[in-house]
Amino acid sequence: MGDDDNDVKVFRVFCIATADTKSEELLFLSNSVQSNLDIFCNHNPSQSSKIQVTIVDVSASMHKKDATSFKNFSYVTREDVLSCYYEAKHNKQQEESVAKTLPSDRGQAIAVMSKALEIFLKRALDNQLLAGAIGLGGTGGTSLLSNALRSLPVGIPKFIISTVASGHTSPYIGTSDLILFPSVVDICGINSISRVVFSNAGAAVAGMVAGRAFGLGDTLNVTKKMTVGVTMAGITTPCVSAVKERLEKLGFETLIFHATGVGGRAMEDLVRSGAIQAVMDITTTEVADYVVGGLLACDSSRFDAVLEMKVPLVLSVGALDVATFAAKQVPSKYHQRNLLMHNEQVIWSVYLLNLRSMHIFPFLALCINVHLVSSVFLFFFFFLNRGLFTMNESSILIRSVR
Amino acid sequence: MGDDDNDVKVFRVFCIATADTKSEELLFLSNSVQSNLDIFCNHNPSQSSKIQVTIVDVSASMHKKDATSFKNFSYVTREDVLSCYYEAKHNKQQEESVAKTLPSDRGQAIAVMSKALEIFLKRALDNQLLAGAIGLGGTGGTSLLSNALRSLPVGIPKFIISTVASGHTSPYIGTSDLILFPSVVDICGINSISRVVFSNAGAAVAGMVAGRAFGLGDTLNVTKKMTVGVTMAGITTPCVSAVKERLEKLGFETLIFHATGVGGRAMEDLVRSGAIQAVMDITTTEVADYVVGGLLACDSSRFDAVLEMKVPLVLSVGALDVATFAAKQVPSKYHQRNLLMHNEQVIWSVYLLNLRSMHIFPFLALCINVHLVSSVFLFFFFFLNRGLFTMNESSILIRSVR
Repeated sequence: MGDDDNDVKVFRVFCIATADTKSEELLFLSNSVQSNLDIFCNHNPSQSSKIQVTIVDVSASMHKKDATSFKNFSYVTREDVLSCYYEAKHNKQQEESVAKTLPSDRGQAIAVMSKALEIFLKRALDNQLLAGAIGLGGTGGTSLLSNALRSLPVGIPKFIISTVASGHTSPYIGTSDLILFPSVVDICGINSISRVVFSNAGAAVAGMVAGRAFGLGDTLNVTKKMTVGVTMAGITTPCVSAVKERLEKLGFETLIFHATGVGGRAMEDLVRSGAIQAVMDITTTEVADYVVGGLLACDSSRFDAVLEMKVPLVLSVGALDVATFAAKQVPSKYHQRNLLMHNEQVIWSVYLLNLRSMHIFPFLALCINVHLVSSVFLFFFFFLNRGLFTMNESSILIRSVR
Repeated sequence: MGDDDNDVKVFRVFCIATADTKSEELLFLSNSVQSNLDIFCNHNPSQSSKIQVTIVDVSASMHKKDATSFKNFSYVTREDVLSCYYEAKHNKQQEESVAKTLPSDRGQAIAVMSKALEIFLKRALDNQLLAGAIGLGGTGGTSLLSNALRSLPVGIPKFIISTVASGHTSPYIGTSDLILFPSVVDICGINSISRVVFSNAGAAVAGMVAGRAFGLGDTLNVTKKMTVGVTMAGITTPCVSAVKERLEKLGFETLIFHATGVGGRAMEDLVRSGAIQAVMDITTTEVADYVVGGLLACDSSRFDAVLEMKVPLVLSVGALDVATFAAKQVPSKYHQRNLLMHNEQVIWSVYLLNLRSMHIFPFLALCINVHLVSSVFLFFFFFLNRGLFTMNESSILIRSVR
């Protein structure tokens, strides 16, 4: 519905940070987003709605400084955000004194604030107020914000200007479409670099929000076609391409996931959300990495989503004889194996399976046996290609998926 | 200057990918960027310029398929891109037959194509044609594109829709402001997920480009104020804040860099580019990580840029007694030390220096001695704070910087 403001629906772009320490940067960013929105949207033929920036404070420090006044912007205090958490926790309206408390432990305080922000954003989404969200922060701030932002559905504009965008980002992004802008310099005032970075970020956010408002963006809808998730790696591409082509001819939509650890998790998250209704897990190489400690490993929950949701599953062993290691980190016990350089960052350690010493098949069997599955087909394609059973050609029974 | 098209300057947003395998996705993305640009910019009061998408092919495969026709878009073939490389290499116009060759080795072919793209983009920048650039790719494509895109100056819109945005991004982003959009699913056709991701990305790119066109964005200019780079970590924040405040009162601009390995490199890159004219390297903890194999390590080139450019340098030992390790990877020899949990992802291993066994000071001394430096001041702040010499309070001589 949106806020009603003289019969004009107001949608919100939330600009979020710890206002006790980042108020200057937050105000600059908010001004940038709003200025760009005003230009991009002010010729919108339908003036029945408008998009406005709202500043949200998520300060988690005990010794709270008074936040700067953010004139021109509507402002959500950290107490407002926290009250979402306590209401949800106690399932009723709390007295004000309770709602304002934060745990004294810094880690716990951040965790509570992060959860509170997640609930706050979820409410705004449910009330159809949320047009997008952008935060800014260092290591701690990115952690606090990313937990909340990545819980929003794929497609909702979600950004963080972060000092850790160039680094190990999977703890922050996970399997979501959260976008990290590299801050280049520390987030510590407005200077010649941060002015450029924040201006650019504000314009990008405004662009994505405006694009969706004009209907150029697409909302994530469960398509009417049945969607099949398919796992792929370089060496299983010929098989997956053939599967994809045949499935599409038969009227299915396919989503391809690179078997990188993240890819498998992304597929499982979309299975849980209902966006994927069947899975052809052709490339299970993540299990090999899990068992031997490789780079692209799944964890023990691999297959859980598929089995819990009882979606039709075709399971195969593509690239299961391959594990991947960082360039100089192939364990010495594999140095005798057939090693294949993939690119500068990653090396593929290719080796024949030793069924007795490997725990791959027991792992797969366990996953399947401990669950009641509607339809699981386990195919072993022992195509001996250069002495391995990587899949360069194969045919897959797809009737089982229908 | 831009292309002249009936006295209208045309600026270019380059949409770049390997068109032999990604033509469908490239066309969809290009349409998204252009549609959004048309809406955001078509009310530009100054119609003396326009912004158009140009598609660029960087296919590096030997068996080149004919690229799809990209009607409605101007199109740069891979031969055009390659010819930039060979012209630059041989410093003269090459015959066409030479310009079209690519090495047969895939890795080398990708390296050549990447370098060619870098030169191509540099020329477009120099000719003032370049409004922005967006690419899309998997692991290989991201590597090819990122090498070229991150060479563009800070502020120029640069994006890649990538399958590896959620992962180890520093090899791709380095110290630049390159933005990676998580592709969520593999880049393999247009489906219910990629349609949303590409539409959003196209709108964000158009927004950033339009924002800059309207002058809301800021170009990176060397400010008239002298800019001082300062290194910081959590425990040196009080010192750095005091330094920053005093420098700003004295009319300097400060850029703060978190000492995370990336931060130090970012500062040095900006020193080389001339954006920083003096350095207060207060927090040299990256050297400790380098020496003991920690997470936030610099490499042996730390300090080289400062010394090469002969900028005034104040060098100190902030947090030099602290090394940082991933949560479960603190080497056993440090388990007796004073360990401090920082957050879930990172643990700080705090220990007293053992000057005889550590190579930190010889390393620092070597860096300084082997270069002729205009002014190097080495300060040792042995503030015994809980038995350590982390810096919670200190004063820095800043007269030397002026």
